[in-house]
Parts: sequence; C-alpha cells; structure tokens
Amino acid sequence: KQALLKRNPEAKIISLGVGDTTQPLVPHVAERLAQSALALGTTKGYSGYGPEQGELLLREKIAHKLYHNCIRPHEIFINDGAKSEVGRLQVLFGRDVTIAVQDPSYPVYVDTSVIMGQTRSYDTKLHQYSGITYMLSTPENGFFPQLQEVPRTDLIYFCSPNNPTGTVATRKQLTQLVSFAKKNRSIIIFDSAYAPYIRDPNLPRSIYEIPGANEVAIEVGSFSKMAGFTGVRLGWSIVPDDLLYDDGTPVRTDWHRIHSTFFNNASNIAQQGGIAILDEMGLQQIEQVIDYYLENTRIIKEALEDLGISTYGGSSAPYIWAAFPGRKSWDVFEEILENKQIITTPGSGFGPGGEGFVRFSGLARREEVVEAIERLQPTKSRTEQLIQLT
Amino acid sequence: KQALLKRNPEAKIISLGVGDTTQPLVPHVAERLAQSALALGTTKGYSGYGPEQGELLLREKIAHKLYHNCIRPHEIFINDGAKSEVGRLQVLFGRDVTIAVQDPSYPVYVDTSVIMGQTRSYDTKLHQYSGITYMLSTPENGFFPQLQEVPRTDLIYFCSPNNPTGTVATRKQLTQLVSFAKKNRSIIIFDSAYAPYIRDPNLPRSIYEIPGANEVAIEVGSFSKMAGFTGVRLGWSIVPDDLLYDDGTPVRTDWHRIHSTFFNNASNIAQQGGIAILDEMGLQQIEQVIDYYLENTRIIKEALEDLGISTYGGSSAPYIWAAFPGRKSWDVFEEILENKQIITTPGSGFGPGGEGFVRFSGLARREEVVEAIERLQPTKSRTEQLIQLT
Repeated sequence: KQALLKRNPEAKIISLGVGDTTQPLVPHVAERLAQSALALGTTKGYSGYGPEQGELLLREKIAHKLYHNCIRPHEIFINDGAKSEVGRLQVLFGRDVTIAVQDPSYPVYVDTSVIMGQTRSYDTKLHQYSGITYMLSTPENGFFPQLQEVPRTDLIYFCSPNNPTGTVATRKQLTQLVSFAKKNRSIIIFDSAYAPYIRDPNLPRSIYEIPGANEVAIEVGSFSKMAGFTGVRLGWSIVPDDLLYDDGTPVRTDWHRIHSTFFNNASNIAQQGGIAILDEMGLQQIEQVIDYYLENTRIIKEALEDLGISTYGGSSAPYIWAAFPGRKSWDVFEEILENKQIITTPGSGFGPGGEGFVRFSGLARREEVVEAIERLQPTKSRTEQLIQLT
Repeated sequence: KQALLKRNPEAKIISLGVGDTTQPLVPHVAERLAQSALALGTTKGYSGYGPEQGELLLREKIAHKLYHNCIRPHEIFINDGAKSEVGRLQVLFGRDVTIAVQDPSYPVYVDTSVIMGQTRSYDTKLHQYSGITYMLSTPENGFFPQLQEVPRTDLIYFCSPNNPTGTVATRKQLTQLVSFAKKNRSIIIFDSAYAPYIRDPNLPRSIYEIPGANEVAIEVGSFSKMAGFTGVRLGWSIVPDDLLYDDGTPVRTDWHRIHSTFFNNASNIAQQGGIAILDEMGLQQIEQVIDYYLENTRIIKEALEDLGISTYGGSSAPYIWAAFPGRKSWDVFEEILENKQIITTPGSGFGPGGEGFVRFSGLARREEVVEAIERLQPTKSRTEQLIQLT
C-alpha cells in the first residue's frame, strides 16, 4: 500500500482488507455508554473494581438472549475481546499442550501458541510450526477437516463462522467434532465471534447447541463484529461446569483463578454498553447494521462470481474467500492492489492452507463496496484508465 | 465479614480494606468520556481498532506531562491496567526466569509467577514459594532490602510508593537498586501505580529519574488510583529503547510483538478519558481528589499513632502500614472487624514479611474515615456498647 501510494499519491485506495467495523455504534448503545460515563462522575453512580467475572446483569443477558439459558451466568466470563481471551486461555493450558487449528484460521491461535513455547521449529517449506496440527480446510472437504486423519491433540481451536473463509460448520459437522473431542479427551476452543452473522436457523450459532458440547468445549464470543465494539473492547468466554480435567476437577475453577489474576475485567463503561446491546432495542438496531454488512458481502460475492471467480462463505459471515487456483495469494493481492487499488487480505497469512485465496471483507462502507465492484469489472473504468495513464 | 453480618445483621461495616477508589470521576474526565462515547455513534467520530501501542496523543501526553519527555511516545504501551500488564510481562519473560519481589508486596507478582510455572514448591512453614527471592522490607531496614544479601535474579519486581506499606524509596535507594540490577544484568519491573500520591519533590516518581535506569528498567503506570479509573481500566508500560537482552537485541521489539498478540488495546473511550486526565484542567481536578484521599490517610495515621500504634507510609501513598508486633495479622484483622466493625487488610496476605501488620486504606469516603477513627477510640462509643449488648 505504501509503495503504491509512493508511486501514485493520488490513488484512492479502498480497503476490503482488515476485518474492522466501519459503521457507527447504534444510537441506543452510544447513548447508554455516554450515560454510564456521566454516571461515574456522580457520587451515586460511581463504581470502582467490578465483579471478578463481570457485571451479573450482562452475564444474565448473554445467558438469556444469546444462549437461551442453556448456559448459566456463573459459567460466563466477561472480557475485553477475543484476542486477549485466547491469550489468557493459552496461559491456562500452558506450554506443554498440543494444539490443532483449522488451516486457514485466525492467526492469533498459532501466534500465541508460538509465544507460549508450545511449538519447536518452523518448517519453511511447509510453512508450519512443529507441534501444531494443521487441519486443512478447503473447498474439497467443504471447509471441514477429515477428522479421521487428524491426530489427537489436547486442544482444538475451531472458529465458525470461520475467519477467514466465511464458511459455517453445520450441525452435523459440529456433532462430529464434539464426538471426536470426547473420544480423544480433547478440549475444543470454539470461537463464535461471527455468530451474529448467521441468519439461517439451521446453522448452529454456538457449540453448545450440540448435545454434550458442555463437557468438551470452551466458547469465546465477542461484541466486536456484533455491535461495532472493535475499539470499545468487550467479549466473553464460557467455561461450563461440566468441563472437567482428566482428574475430575472442573476447568472453570482454574479459569476463574487465572482470569482474575491476569485480568481486572473489561471497562465498566463498555460493560454497560454490552447490556444496552442486549436490550430489545439494542438487538433490533444492531440487526440492521449486520444486515448492511451482509448486503455488502452479497454485492462483493456476486461481482466476483460474475467475473468467474469461485467464492466461498459470505452468506453467514462478513468475509468472502475467493479462489485463485495455482496462484500465490500475495501475487493476487498485489495485482488487485496495483490494478484496482483495492486492498484484500492474502490467504497465506492465515496459514499454508490459505495459499491461492484472498479474503474480501464486507465490513466496509457501501459506497466503497459499490466503487470497488465497479473497479473490478473487466471493462476499463475511468479510474482504471487514469491509473494506466500515470 | 459475612460471619459478622450473620451474627449481627445491623452491623454498619466500614471498609478501609481493598484499595479501591470511592470518589466520582472529575467532571472534565467524565464529560470527555461521555463525548467520546457519543462520537462513536456518528459517521465522522466512529473508530474501530486503534493503533497497536495506543493512541499517539495519549502517549505523547504521558511522555510530556508525566515523564518530562525523558521517555518517548514509541517507548510507551497503553494498556487496560497494571494487573493485566504484569500478567503479559510474565508471558514476555516466560517460565524459565527467576524473580525477586519485595516482601510484602502486591500479590499479583507472585500469583502470576506461580501460574506461569516459575516456581516449584510452596514452603508451608516459611510461606514462600521456591524459585522466588523474597526481599524482606521492614521498619528495621527502612522498607528497602539489604541488596548485598539478595541473590541475582533475572527480574526484580519493585513497587514504589509501595503497596501495601505506603512507603516510598528515596532517590539514593533507587540509585542503589539500579546499580544492583546493572551489575547483575537483571531487569527491574518498576510499579509506579501510586506515584501521583507523592508530593515531596525530593522523592522520585519514576525509576527513570535515576540515571541509567532506562538500560535496566520497565515501568508500569496506571490511571486507576491517579484518577479513579479502577473500573474504567487504563494504564501504560514503558520499555525503553536502551533496554537490551544479553545478545544486544532490544526488549521493546519482543514486547511490541507480545503486547499486540495477547492484547488489542484499552477501550478507545477510556483512552480519550486518559487524554482528558492529562489536560491542564484534568490534572488540576484529579489533584484535588488525591488531596482528599491523602487527607483521609493523614487522619487515619494520626488516630492510630494517638493510640500508640506504630505506623509507616501514608504520607505519599493512600496506604498506612500499622504494626502489631508479635501478633498474627489475621487475628488483628478479626479483632478490629469484630470490635470496631472496620475492615482492614491482613498484612500476611502480601507475603510472609507482612505478618504482624495490617494495611489501612485512605481510599474511602471522608465520613467513613471520621466514623472509623471515632470507633477506634479506646472509650466505648455507642455503637460499640450496642455490639457488646448483642
């Protein structure tokens, strides 16, 4: 991007790259955040350290509105977002565990694993760390790993709707995953940060929709993509009572200890914002923003398909996974940036299984999306002609 | 406390225990927090993920207002408070390091060390973990360890003004500490969370006031006790460019990597609040709140001294360390709770060196402080007579 801007300072670059939200907070939530900030300036409304696991009302609302009370408030831990929570989960399990990740997947699972010392060497040919099992997820296997080929690991990181592929595991697939974990005595760390983008009632929004999952899975959820809280910072994790170590002791007890020693909870202002998100009015308003992003994604996906590019995901997630078979992701990325001045994300950044793909994000402004798909047309647009003249 | 309330549900308990702030946010800060929340609800004011090390303006203000530009903005990392940051520092250094802590000290240094696996066994007689060097800090050594008796460790945690003793290391003492670290090639992790309570210009507010400290020390600062942000969550750490590993590579590069992999920065709302705190008006207003707490502390200290109890700290920190030689901290705690219905913090909770002391906190409401010292008088107050009747 910097190189392009150097050569062509006039370039109007559109980013469909980083998965960051672009739409303002909804009024109901912004107002509640402001009210709660002002309340902290009053004797009556001031509060200091909050409850260790986060505000009870927020945990009750998450249990009720997002988990239909199949999860209980004391099993929920409020946090400042999924990234930090994944890091703390690494601290919980320590450096002597083995992990499996979807390939491609959100890079933080692997990065935190490497930093914790769970891996040994890096294979520059395979682009894999030893000590990590990469579960290849491609169009050929419907983006769900062939579990019979996967060796046992202590932990299995699984993200659905998936970042970066935008695909969602079906109920049947998650049922297989839960059985697999149960058989192997593995713990699934299920990342449901994009669950609010699922509109198909047949697709599971939570691992706990699968019977028995509460005995094998931790879930990590987030308000970031649900309500534009990428900057405000708020999320949660769930460690059910029924999740036990091999010796029969509950994981939740350890997690409580680590969570409250390595963390002092999310900002009280953000937590009040979370409560507002889960009000009826909040939920209605954020639904419209999610609709907006999903419409962006639909527009991009349709345009790519019209160009003959195979795409995946994008109907229940803000991401489209576009296939460029036989090509290097970074070459495709550079070509799109150079020729169309559109930033995407090279698939190989998500693991070796992402090679040959780029990710398009619908978390953009509509006018940018419309401009971007116009640029993507094979007939030369005026902008493109101008670029070629420079 | 629960036991007392069960026996005597009418008991009006005053807490001078947990070090939590009680005074409302100052108007300048509460208003800025509210404004920044409302701005997030507008197209123009919305922002998602922020800069990896935190808002530049906030880092510039910290460098300028708190460090007189002897620290540069790129050496500052914004965070969500000292507790989480200490945890991330443990992740930076990993489980194979040796550490030294002041004894007594803020329990999080030891707790995170144990969780990381730096320690092996716990000696139930000495109340010490093997693998940790406890630097005894008592009235006899002026609450500064006899460094000539301290073995070399990789890290030295040092908190000044100290929690729990409320004492402050002098410039001469910190100069010794810096030389000691330099000689041993140790890294000091200097916790300055209570520095805003220092009014004596001869006492150092930062380790970087000591020449050469930038080659041996990381500093952790916080807005929690400075501006009542215990619930809002905002702090910073400093890793100077000149702090190098033995192989000559900068610690800062690693820290940047770990900080941005295990953390996604503090809430953008809280960061705007931090900027407001460091405005001229913000600084003036928080000064008054700190004065209020320091006056509380002075009142408590005077009352204790009048009762013939030896006290330490309390003039440059919100804590008073009260000595009860030959007695168990928990017995003293229980006696004060039972007889005076005042909660303190037993010194032994801060390490074996805290045995025989209790901590009184001035972070309370004035009316509670006044009521508490009245109860502490040896003449029986009406409340106390009532208790004895029940």
